[in-house]
Amino acid sequence: MTLAHETPLRVRYAETDQMGVVYYANFFVWFEIGRVELMRHLGVEYKQMEQRDDCFIVVAECACRYLRPARYDDLLRVRTRVAEVRSRAIRFEYEIFDDAGQTRLATGHTVHVICDRRGAPKSLPEKYRQLLRGPRSATAAARHRP
Amino acid sequence: MTLAHETPLRVRYAETDQMGVVYYANFFVWFEIGRVELMRHLGVEYKQMEQRDDCFIVVAECACRYLRPARYDDLLRVRTRVAEVRSRAIRFEYEIFDDAGQTRLATGHTVHVICDRRGAPKSLPEKYRQLLRGPRSATAAARHRP
Amino acid sequence: MTLAHETPLRVRYAETDQMGVVYYANFFVWFEIGRVELMRHLGVEYKQMEQRDDCFIVVAECACRYLRPARYDDLLRVRTRVAEVRSRAIRFEYEIFDDAGQTRLATGHTVHVICDRRGAPKSLPEKYRQLLRGPRSATAAARHRP
Amino acid sequence: MTLAHETPLRVRYAETDQMGVVYYANFFVWFEIGRVELMRHLGVEYKQMEQRDDCFIVVAECACRYLRPARYDDLLRVRTRVAEVRSRAIRFEYEIFDDAGQTRLATGHTVHVICDRRGAPKSLPEKYRQLLRGPRSATAAARHRP
Repeated sequence: MTLAHETPLRVRYAETDQMGVVYYANFFVWFEIGRVELMRHLGVEYKQMEQRDDCFIVVAECACRYLRPARYDDLLRVRTRVAEVRSRAIRFEYEIFDDAGQTRLATGHTVHVICDRRGAPKSLPEKYRQLLRGPRSATAAARHRP
Repeated sequence: MTLAHETPLRVRYAETDQMGVVYYANFFVWFEIGRVELMRHLGVEYKQMEQRDDCFIVVAECACRYLRPARYDDLLRVRTRVAEVRSRAIRFEYEIFDDAGQTRLATGHTVHVICDRRGAPKSLPEKYRQLLRGPRSATAAARHRP
Repeated sequence: MTLAHETPLRVRYAETDQMGVVYYANFFVWFEIGRVELMRHLGVEYKQMEQRDDCFIVVAECACRYLRPARYDDLLRVRTRVAEVRSRAIRFEYEIFDDAGQTRLATGHTVHVICDRRGAPKSLPEKYRQLLRGPRSATAAARHRP
Repeated sequence: MTLAHETPLRVRYAETDQMGVVYYANFFVWFEIGRVELMRHLGVEYKQMEQRDDCFIVVAECACRYLRPARYDDLLRVRTRVAEVRSRAIRFEYEIFDDAGQTRLATGHTVHVICDRRGAPKSLPEKYRQLLRGPRSATAAARHRP
């Protein structure tokens, strides 16, 4: 598992509902921000992945547990990890924290399959697999050399 | 101008904000529903217009005036008219009514230009121009024959 | 478990993303529509539940599996069941079907806790528990009478 | 008119539609971000305005002209100005620029009325009027002293 990457965000008025808290589906938009910024941090521009390499990471499964409400104008952090990279699937894990990084508001995960622009499954190119496994796995690999 | 076409819709929880009313940007989503259903009523499947005829109606301008708040679970009506059809642009006008069709919650308009899938401007094919002008304009045209 | 209730919906342009399919978070908006309409079918107006009885059903957990993409203008059905009703929590299960009710696009669930308007947990009033358990449980209860 | 304030934002995948560009209604969400950040810059925390002073700035009117499409992952700037502050209404004007601040993607405005939490119109408290008029108007006022 790679180290976690944190992305800050501020809650928009549009994201609240009449309960006075953030509408539950919007946490998945934040998860998207978390994984895109984690990928960028690891050297993967998702936009280029689609355009140049015809690789779309399509959501196959997702889940979220809500621990505390998020409110308008809150500054939050999305902490994202690549939990697993296989040839045809990637799993990301997410935690939403308050600005201090102390209080956890939600946890979740998404599983993605790799498809081309027509939606046919394909393998994730090796360069992306290595980048998404991150520098820690390189270190771990090095450690296992005899 | 064509006759107005009405489409019912029910306000979703996701569409409210913490003021307890519908977030202002969502009225434009309802306008979209109104124009798609008006077009369908006039014989134009917008989906086919994009896929078969490479015609995208891209929003160039929009506006809305809010008269009364819309609330969660309200049944509303979007009343939509084609206000103008030119070779390269279409103007739709909208009114949002309560379920009784008595109280007006909002009015607005959108102006669209016709583009191909790459975003280059093009003319609206004649068949669509005629359909969007609607049966009244055909009648009006007939009336003007000597 | 209550019988499933089906609600039709049509995919909005606003719900698609640049992959040409519905953005994954929007399925949870459809789940919301499914549960509100199921509740209405069972005699529970969720709006009144909030306003008159100060009962908010707050999402504690949700998940979705995506089997096939949903596309713009598709007519779909949300099939919703009350899977469990306890004094302080409700579980709904969802399936998204195509218009023919043959092809399943997604499955999911949500778990809700009951809170007052300040967010403090409370018990679901007995009248709602009975309504949400549905006519089948009444029948089942009847069957168990000696 | 106050000086313009600029807020950066990055286009989210959720904000795109199947045309491959940002869905038109989302520009109004960006306008909201622009006005909240401008207000914060001028010393007004909108959240506190609602909570402490029971002042809600309700949208009465809005409009947008789209000059160029915004695309996924674009870094953009929202340039916002307070165009007018009256006792019962505020007008904001917006421009959306690319990251270089050179190319304008859209322009728009919103007009807001001040309401209490029940939706009844009220006057904007004097302290907010002064803050929203900004330091320039203070300077301008000073300049006019004999």
